[in-house]
Amino acid sequence: MSTNAESPASTTREWQLAARPVGWPKNDDFRFVERELPDLQPGEVRVRNTYISVDPYMRGRMNDVKSYIPPFQLDEAMTGGAVGEVVASRSDDLAVGDTVLHFDGWRTLAQGPAKNYRKVSKVPGLPESVFLHVLGMTGLTAYVGLLDIAEFKEGDTVFVSGAAGAVGSVVGQIARLKGAKRVIGSAGSQEKVDLLTGKYGFDAAFNYKDGDVREQLAQAAPEGIDVYFDNVGGDHLEAALKAFNNDGRAALCGMISVYNATEPQPAPRNLFETIKKGLTLRGFTVGGYYHRFDAFAAEVGEWLSKGDFVYDETVVDGIEQTRDAFLDMLRGANVGKMLVRVG
Amino acid sequence: MSTNAESPASTTREWQLAARPVGWPKNDDFRFVERELPDLQPGEVRVRNTYISVDPYMRGRMNDVKSYIPPFQLDEAMTGGAVGEVVASRSDDLAVGDTVLHFDGWRTLAQGPAKNYRKVSKVPGLPESVFLHVLGMTGLTAYVGLLDIAEFKEGDTVFVSGAAGAVGSVVGQIARLKGAKRVIGSAGSQEKVDLLTGKYGFDAAFNYKDGDVREQLAQAAPEGIDVYFDNVGGDHLEAALKAFNNDGRAALCGMISVYNATEPQPAPRNLFETIKKGLTLRGFTVGGYYHRFDAFAAEVGEWLSKGDFVYDETVVDGIEQTRDAFLDMLRGANVGKMLVRVG
Repeated sequence: MSTNAESPASTTREWQLAARPVGWPKNDDFRFVERELPDLQPGEVRVRNTYISVDPYMRGRMNDVKSYIPPFQLDEAMTGGAVGEVVASRSDDLAVGDTVLHFDGWRTLAQGPAKNYRKVSKVPGLPESVFLHVLGMTGLTAYVGLLDIAEFKEGDTVFVSGAAGAVGSVVGQIARLKGAKRVIGSAGSQEKVDLLTGKYGFDAAFNYKDGDVREQLAQAAPEGIDVYFDNVGGDHLEAALKAFNNDGRAALCGMISVYNATEPQPAPRNLFETIKKGLTLRGFTVGGYYHRFDAFAAEVGEWLSKGDFVYDETVVDGIEQTRDAFLDMLRGANVGKMLVRVG
Repeated sequence: MSTNAESPASTTREWQLAARPVGWPKNDDFRFVERELPDLQPGEVRVRNTYISVDPYMRGRMNDVKSYIPPFQLDEAMTGGAVGEVVASRSDDLAVGDTVLHFDGWRTLAQGPAKNYRKVSKVPGLPESVFLHVLGMTGLTAYVGLLDIAEFKEGDTVFVSGAAGAVGSVVGQIARLKGAKRVIGSAGSQEKVDLLTGKYGFDAAFNYKDGDVREQLAQAAPEGIDVYFDNVGGDHLEAALKAFNNDGRAALCGMISVYNATEPQPAPRNLFETIKKGLTLRGFTVGGYYHRFDAFAAEVGEWLSKGDFVYDETVVDGIEQTRDAFLDMLRGANVGKMLVRVG
């Protein structure tokens, strides 16, 4: 058993939710505080966070609405994916120095029962931040959504919206590596579009701000699409419904277009296409698919180690920047996974 | 070989599409004409129609839009399900007196290659009109939609919109006979609501004109729903998304709420529920599922013969009434299957 009475630090700095945002979050909806941690109890560990994840779904947790995960509590530290190093342990399961993946983000020091912290093995040559995206939950989300939910099969033409994002860029690469006929992505800037067709190996990509999404998708997919991986909703889903071939399948993963709306947003106006074409639209969250983690990590880990699979990170330095990093991510300022390096 | 040189009649009376309706069809979008049939050619049969089907999907065929079946042609007789009796035959496959199911509706006399006419065996005690609904395509639509598309399983709570219609009333009864926990239906009049809970054995039903569909469904399904069979779209689909339990499944069969709209209609505003709850929305048309006909006919035929399964017909007399019967059906005037008896 590894214990460590003189832990190197016991003051955590953390981001709390001060008020529930209405529409676009304001700066004073958040509060940055210092807090003294209680003494470590038997079975607990203390973790110094190295990387913190900021993700679109967190916006939903700021509302007081029952969802697939509970809302953030006011005046408490927010939570989310993080990776860190064990700095003190009163548990047999984890030792000082272990790298762990966990859900106590938005803070410098995390502390709690060892069972909440999953020990991971660093991949040689890769930073531990990969466990927060390509080899973590976002990678698993892409893998499950494409293969299990949309039932991708070799020869399919695949359209991914928000394709330069953390999930989308993984979806496109898995589709390519598994034999898609054609992979098409949408993104919100020319820089991202270039990344998609350059670095990530998409066959075609377009900037949705350049014009009507339906028209741009029709040009990029002259023979229609078989699979749609939806990170955006709204006009993108409408365009996909129009472009679908018969028996098409959509994995509905995110709808970033509606997260900050204060009123319910109309969905696609052409849902009747689902009947005409025998389409399947299937929503999911990754929570029900952790049992697929080992298959996913083995397959994607091998591609990563062989250099077949690439990724981008947008890393912001300093825990003080977490709020702004989160808001910038919602605005689409990131390329690939948006992360905060705690330092 | 059965031939019949002196056929009893060679003048058909038929409904043609005179103009493509914009919005709600006008009377003079249709034309009722008499036409002399050509002589019967080798391999052909002539059929005197006894019952003609009018169905919601026909409205879509009046538009010049590519859909899952081609549009009606202007200045030609419209088509659709019909049952009739062979009155002349130059085919070895069909004899005078045979009862046949076919697609040359909207007319008194049909004529063409024998392969277009399927011989059916009358069920003792039942009129031949059943082949146009419970033992025909609408029954198969209900069966496939509930079992194959929505993947109904014993113990599910099922919601059916347009439940007093030709498809909906079959869906509810199959669900009940296969062990649903609770079957809920919506309809557009108190008379239909009473039919649902009385004659068809639904556990609960409501009149969607009485108030907000979401609220009425929430009251009728306090523990949520697992399966939704959608004949309506719009507010009903929105209500179902809200009422769904996790892993719910919707069969999207029809969207009568949007058929006469001249502009694309916004779909449900809460499509994000599909992600939160892991819902599957699956559209279908029966055309891809004819291979299920035998299983369907055996199962439903046995229920019918034992009296476990009931149906309603709204029968309008006279081929001249076909247009009005069609429009009345779109307005919801029918109870159960809307038919025209040719006489």
